Amino acid sequence: MSKYKYIKEEAYEANLELPKLGLVVFTFGNVSSVDRNLGVFAIKPSGVPYDELSPEKMVVVDYDGNIVKGKLRPSSDTKTHALLYKHWEKIGGISHTHSIYATSWAQSQRDIPILGTTHADHITVDIPCAQPMNDEMISGNYEHETGWQIIKCFNEKALNYEEVEMILVGNHAPFTWGKNAAKAVYNSAVLENIAQMAFLTQQINPSSPRLKDALIKKHFERKHGPDSYYGQ
Amino acid sequence: MSKYKYIKEEAYEANLELPKLGLVVFTFGNVSSVDRNLGVFAIKPSGVPYDELSPEKMVVVDYDGNIVKGKLRPSSDTKTHALLYKHWEKIGGISHTHSIYATSWAQSQRDIPILGTTHADHITVDIPCAQPMNDEMISGNYEHETGWQIIKCFNEKALNYEEVEMILVGNHAPFTWGKNAAKAVYNSAVLENIAQMAFLTQQINPSSPRLKDALIKKHFERKHGPDSYYGQ
Amino acid sequence: MSKYKYIKEEAYEANLELPKLGLVVFTFGNVSSVDRNLGVFAIKPSGVPYDELSPEKMVVVDYDGNIVKGKLRPSSDTKTHALLYKHWEKIGGISHTHSIYATSWAQSQRDIPILGTTHADHITVDIPCAQPMNDEMISGNYEHETGWQIIKCFNEKALNYEEVEMILVGNHAPFTWGKNAAKAVYNSAVLENIAQMAFLTQQINPSSPRLKDALIKKHFERKHGPDSYYGQ
Amino acid sequence: MSKYKYIKEEAYEANLELPKLGLVVFTFGNVSSVDRNLGVFAIKPSGVPYDELSPEKMVVVDYDGNIVKGKLRPSSDTKTHALLYKHWEKIGGISHTHSIYATSWAQSQRDIPILGTTHADHITVDIPCAQPMNDEMISGNYEHETGWQIIKCFNEKALNYEEVEMILVGNHAPFTWGKNAAKAVYNSAVLENIAQMAFLTQQINPSSPRLKDALIKKHFERKHGPDSYYGQ
Repeated sequence: MSKYKYIKEEAYEANLELPKLGLVVFTFGNVSSVDRNLGVFAIKPSGVPYDELSPEKMVVVDYDGNIVKGKLRPSSDTKTHALLYKHWEKIGGISHTHSIYATSWAQSQRDIPILGTTHADHITVDIPCAQPMNDEMISGNYEHETGWQIIKCFNEKALNYEEVEMILVGNHAPFTWGKNAAKAVYNSAVLENIAQMAFLTQQINPSSPRLKDALIKKHFERKHGPDSYYGQ
Repeated sequence: MSKYKYIKEEAYEANLELPKLGLVVFTFGNVSSVDRNLGVFAIKPSGVPYDELSPEKMVVVDYDGNIVKGKLRPSSDTKTHALLYKHWEKIGGISHTHSIYATSWAQSQRDIPILGTTHADHITVDIPCAQPMNDEMISGNYEHETGWQIIKCFNEKALNYEEVEMILVGNHAPFTWGKNAAKAVYNSAVLENIAQMAFLTQQINPSSPRLKDALIKKHFERKHGPDSYYGQ
Repeated sequence: MSKYKYIKEEAYEANLELPKLGLVVFTFGNVSSVDRNLGVFAIKPSGVPYDELSPEKMVVVDYDGNIVKGKLRPSSDTKTHALLYKHWEKIGGISHTHSIYATSWAQSQRDIPILGTTHADHITVDIPCAQPMNDEMISGNYEHETGWQIIKCFNEKALNYEEVEMILVGNHAPFTWGKNAAKAVYNSAVLENIAQMAFLTQQINPSSPRLKDALIKKHFERKHGPDSYYGQ
Repeated sequence: MSKYKYIKEEAYEANLELPKLGLVVFTFGNVSSVDRNLGVFAIKPSGVPYDELSPEKMVVVDYDGNIVKGKLRPSSDTKTHALLYKHWEKIGGISHTHSIYATSWAQSQRDIPILGTTHADHITVDIPCAQPMNDEMISGNYEHETGWQIIKCFNEKALNYEEVEMILVGNHAPFTWGKNAAKAVYNSAVLENIAQMAFLTQQINPSSPRLKDALIKKHFERKHGPDSYYGQ
């Protein structure tokens, strides 16, 4: 049995969730799952429709983006995944979609303001939008530079990738991550939900206030603090 | 046979309606069903996906939020349900969701104005939005205080909880209730419908007038007055 | 075999289309089918969920709204249907929904402007919105008066009910009709489609021009003129 | 076996995709597939619901719009298809829908600005909106003139139909094309997706900037350039 069996199945199952959750059309998204002991991750092959995927078709790649196992070409975004795995050592899975509302916020180049407790249940800050890269980075090793742009944005805003598991890449679309591939996909869906409600909230009342600090703290700690009491 | 069998089945069935009606994603919602003779209610366990629920997994709790029966931790919003059952004696079920449009209105901190007969078929006033609590209440017994905030809002606006079976909690999301759990969930769906149409109406015509008093009275009484002629 | 069998089955089938087409939630809509020889129509019973309907449950009513056959109470909007059948002799079916976009336009009390060929394929004028009635009419024989308000609006605007098969009742919701119940329901769905696109068009470009007369004429005549070449 | 069997099956399969992808209601759309050797194309019959279609019902037409084979009347838009096949020799299929968001942009008479990489993955320019025709063209050979209006728009804007496979016809709706009928339908769905996100982006931030040239170039070349690395 292949030593990559587990991450290939994890990546396969997580990729299938994207169309089920209404987050992708056609082939517009990709999820990967990492094996930290082996230093490799399994990712969706490029341009293959979700209903033609199988665990065997997942491509195994190392942290520099080199193919380790697999006959197909990996997702065109593979180098972004690779860089994030290399530098953020506690990530277990990464998800990238072009979901409608989150992508529209990315295109508007605006952070998604924290306007309610649904947001605070998951993140205590505005969802960051990384600015577009300079032309040299774009025309160079683009997907690799996209990874750096994400990390640079987190460093500048002093964000912790273990607490903030999502970002908008300006003009492009969202990336999310988590302890495993399933959690990364969950975060893609949560982000889409938050993005839609933030859009509507500002349409209903353009001067809707940001959430109070006390509410942000309370809701996040209900789910994530040392005294959390959400879930089993 | 357990004396809690009936309310556990009621709560189970009502919780399953939430995803079917498109009112929740993942675990973002909870419904409870009360037994007024026994002074307890059955509620969804916290953080358990809807497709893993069963009547047995429902948690039975008293009006002070103490667990009476059940192995799982109850919904994190349990104390809000408990307080409402304790003080509003004719409620038979409570539903809480983060449905998209109603939650966006809650985030905008605005009442939903009565703009049409769909609204008046169910409620004769604007759907109230309770203001966010002060910091002390939030950092204290938060979910218990949320219940008080709802009751306080109704008292200040002189609303009757038997006539107005829904509220928006500012920055958070809606709560609805009714004679039983199924009616509470019905009200969650009605509220979402009204919230979407109120949003669109104000987008189409920002100066759309509130419904005339005569129409409010007529439509409500068609369904609810002593001479109602809606339904069988 | 009942002489009402045909219209009861027609009304039953047409009512079932409403939830399939996404035009209603719960019991928010009703369709009727008329027998011009017998001078009666079959209509949905009031407040009965669509999945509990059967042809037998349809209620047969005359043009004055009197029940001719059926054990259940007919739709609360029955007198509006009755009046329209009485005065507009070539209508074969009527449909009433609270579909999201058409109802939002009704709540905004605005006609839906003709902005594109999808609209012109069906109607050559703006979709009329009848103004709300005066208080006396509302508190009196309300549903009967709603019918008169519709006819009055058509008379004032010099519209022909055989050419314009839909209207918005201000603050309330749409009514549509046609040669039979199936066509009435088709018109409900077409109206919802047109209403959504008119909303979006004005959001994208608030000064979007009305359709040119030549295009209105061309598209309508493609489908409906003496030299029509649409369909078989 | 009929020499038209292949294109009739291609057209049939592609037409069935339209309702599956949520791009049409009722009969509001049509797809055709061309045989360049025989100089004919198969197209949907006019006004026939998608669930009543079969490969046999497809109508075979030449580049001047004359019926070559088939008992049914072809789509009312057939002459537009014919003209495009005649003048753009490398098109293999054409799709026409009244999908909600793309049609709303067409009704607003605005090009869809290039605001993100989802757009640039497919097209490097704004999606053009052809202006409405003059009255003489409309009242004359309308569908034929629609084809000329599309070609004229491409000539004026110096666009290449092999690179830009979609257009909005002002006040009407979109047309898309591609190497075959399936690709034309794919482009209809991509356009709808881009149109929805462009609408939302401008609602969130009315001054959202167009995509940088470097990003446009990079994303398009990832998928379509000589060194493309998207897909297998």
